[in-house]
Amino acid sequence: MKSTPIDYDTVREMLRTATPDRILRFIGKSHPADIALLFKGLDPTEVRQFFDILFSARRAAKTLTELPPELLPDILALIDDEKIARVIVRADPDDAVTIIDSLTEERRESVLSLLDPERREEVRELISYPESTVGRIMNTEFMALAPTTTAQGAIDKIRERGELESFFYLYVVDHENKLVGVVPIRNLVIAPRDRTLSEMMIADPLKGDVFMDQEEAARIVAKYELLALPIVDEGGRLEGIITVDDVIDIINEESTEDMYKMAGLAEEDRVFTPISRSVKMRLPWTMLNLLTTGLAASVVTIFQGTITELVALVTFMPIVAGVGGNGATQTATVIIRGIALGELEFSSAWKAIVKQVSVNVCLAVAAGAVIALIAALWQGNPTLGFVLAVAMILNLGLVAGLSGAVIPLLLKAMKFDPALGSGIVVTGLTDAFGFLSFLGLATLFIHYLT
Amino acid sequence: MKSTPIDYDTVREMLRTATPDRILRFIGKSHPADIALLFKGLDPTEVRQFFDILFSARRAAKTLTELPPELLPDILALIDDEKIARVIVRADPDDAVTIIDSLTEERRESVLSLLDPERREEVRELISYPESTVGRIMNTEFMALAPTTTAQGAIDKIRERGELESFFYLYVVDHENKLVGVVPIRNLVIAPRDRTLSEMMIADPLKGDVFMDQEEAARIVAKYELLALPIVDEGGRLEGIITVDDVIDIINEESTEDMYKMAGLAEEDRVFTPISRSVKMRLPWTMLNLLTTGLAASVVTIFQGTITELVALVTFMPIVAGVGGNGATQTATVIIRGIALGELEFSSAWKAIVKQVSVNVCLAVAAGAVIALIAALWQGNPTLGFVLAVAMILNLGLVAGLSGAVIPLLLKAMKFDPALGSGIVVTGLTDAFGFLSFLGLATLFIHYLT
Repeated sequence: MKSTPIDYDTVREMLRTATPDRILRFIGKSHPADIALLFKGLDPTEVRQFFDILFSARRAAKTLTELPPELLPDILALIDDEKIARVIVRADPDDAVTIIDSLTEERRESVLSLLDPERREEVRELISYPESTVGRIMNTEFMALAPTTTAQGAIDKIRERGELESFFYLYVVDHENKLVGVVPIRNLVIAPRDRTLSEMMIADPLKGDVFMDQEEAARIVAKYELLALPIVDEGGRLEGIITVDDVIDIINEESTEDMYKMAGLAEEDRVFTPISRSVKMRLPWTMLNLLTTGLAASVVTIFQGTITELVALVTFMPIVAGVGGNGATQTATVIIRGIALGELEFSSAWKAIVKQVSVNVCLAVAAGAVIALIAALWQGNPTLGFVLAVAMILNLGLVAGLSGAVIPLLLKAMKFDPALGSGIVVTGLTDAFGFLSFLGLATLFIHYLT
Repeated sequence: MKSTPIDYDTVREMLRTATPDRILRFIGKSHPADIALLFKGLDPTEVRQFFDILFSARRAAKTLTELPPELLPDILALIDDEKIARVIVRADPDDAVTIIDSLTEERRESVLSLLDPERREEVRELISYPESTVGRIMNTEFMALAPTTTAQGAIDKIRERGELESFFYLYVVDHENKLVGVVPIRNLVIAPRDRTLSEMMIADPLKGDVFMDQEEAARIVAKYELLALPIVDEGGRLEGIITVDDVIDIINEESTEDMYKMAGLAEEDRVFTPISRSVKMRLPWTMLNLLTTGLAASVVTIFQGTITELVALVTFMPIVAGVGGNGATQTATVIIRGIALGELEFSSAWKAIVKQVSVNVCLAVAAGAVIALIAALWQGNPTLGFVLAVAMILNLGLVAGLSGAVIPLLLKAMKFDPALGSGIVVTGLTDAFGFLSFLGLATLFIHYLT
């Protein structure tokens, strides 16, 4: 494997002047992940041209599937159905699914119809699994052998089969294709030639089923430090494997999803997603945000009378709201990340909520004391200080602590993503309650304040 | 490997009533990751007791290093130096570093002094590497053989060596211990017995050096779908390996760090970190937030006169600020994640900034139109609607778009973490500028507003 990066400007230059052969020689044995990056800077004509060169060298499939997820649809849009179909025929089944998934609904059928019936069935079966289940992303190429195979027999089979993409374990299946064991390839290396797989296999290995959530499969692979997890159907028959490189992709994807959902972003909204598409995806969240801030603002309207009596209150309003919002975001982040990393389960949810509220109350007492002191000294008004401190404790302590901890857990309990819009919701709540507590208390104590 | 979870209540009950042997039998072959979870629910006496049982069965080291990072220091605090030293002697070098790192500064030396000189030197060397370099976390146990070794010779060596924790590649080194090639174990399986390693190795393989940032190493392993990355010193001598399971830990850690730094949280601040420690870690951020919201609030003070003339303005203030804050957080999230996943480099930073600002301006025009319409209809005041719309476009469009995109890139350029406090900073900015633009414009147009 060549590790030096490709000089992209040279390739672009060569696309104008050099023959395909020279370009392929220049790219050499570069990894598909590096070649894929080339597509980023090309214009449509160059994309087609470069794709054709890779296609002729049978390197298009691997390269396409290494593209950043937001670029693949744009590239595929420039390539005709027939070529895509031929790429899919040559691709590994899981890569084929990635490509099919990135086609528009209408093109999907016409590309599928160009495949030979067997391949079409295979792809259709994989894409029939619901999104984010392991069935949809599993690799269906693996080595499965009978328990009676000897070590030497297994080695011969491996030799026959040739290069396999991900190959760390041999799977042992019975006559019904049910998974009975796993043999790590390192054990095979040191086994006597005539030992059978059933003698050296790990019996009843960890496995997942085709409908398992991909996040769950990733957690098992990460927790037990596996290289691959066998995936079986409801009858226990071996259907595919999830490899550790899939797991890394899943983990990155899920982390992105958590960060994104908190802020109110769609997963496809990446750094270089076209502007119109980003706007379309963010617009509903912006409108939701307009609604939540609007609701918080409507609280202010109730207290216009109080504000008229003491306009200095307006200065302190955003402090109570803003510090509360940040405290709630902090708490929500800790809880969401705890759920994602498997550190927090429902059994200990109560303990976590109590802890987070306690932390926030302590912080609120400190912040309340500081702001009270400032108000008392600057405005010469100790009552204002008192009102601010109490509002801070109520908002940052109770509302921020409770909402930050409870909302993600509640979303999780309702089978939603725990991060879903939580940033927007908790800041909306702390804004509204910050105004309510501060202006409400100020209204009660207005005679001492003015 | 047993895949059924352990019944924790039973173990806790057994700690009171059963012999260590019975407890060990009950735990059986459970994975250390599952056993470690047991510690979560135990009180200090039980922790000591359970540790001693694992210790006597030589299973303490593996279990300790599987503990969630925030729990390990508390558990170690309950165990005496001598036992910790003996655990370290038996542990893999990288696990030894994890344990040493979780000890308090003072205890570290006294535990190190209990080790035999050779082991002490080994550990000292590893902990001498700066934090978050690969040198500190690399695994120093690997198989390195001479290029002239035959396939059969290599297999014999593997047999001699016995179980190795992570074993996917054979490393080929010259007489000076310099890395010259890598042989995937699967190639060894199918090679003729008399072929030499130099004939079947991948020459000049991808490698990292001991001072490489761990995040960089993780990116290489993930990008090229490797199972392990060899790590060499400045002379090219093989010093250790980073395995894919380390990489998963690094990726999870770095994602946590990004989410945490955005919200203003220390990495050790987990769901079940003791309250006092969480408070101590969050307090500086709360104070910073008090300062940023205070600065924003001080903008309001300038416009008290305007507010006195039209108190209805107060209702709309938090909307302009809040929607801007959320837009800035969205933008910052996209940029931070793009940097983390390697999708965004400095060369294309300019393009990314322009794109994000454009998206935000479009959103701002939409949000501005809606809020202007509401203000015009509800308050019967088209000028107020106009002021709101312009303030929204300035704040959500320009300030949120620019600060959300530029601040993380600027932090990155200054070699800080791009996420560092960005949530707090951008919301502070959009609060301040939201008030400034809205109240400033209102002041200009006050005669048309009242």
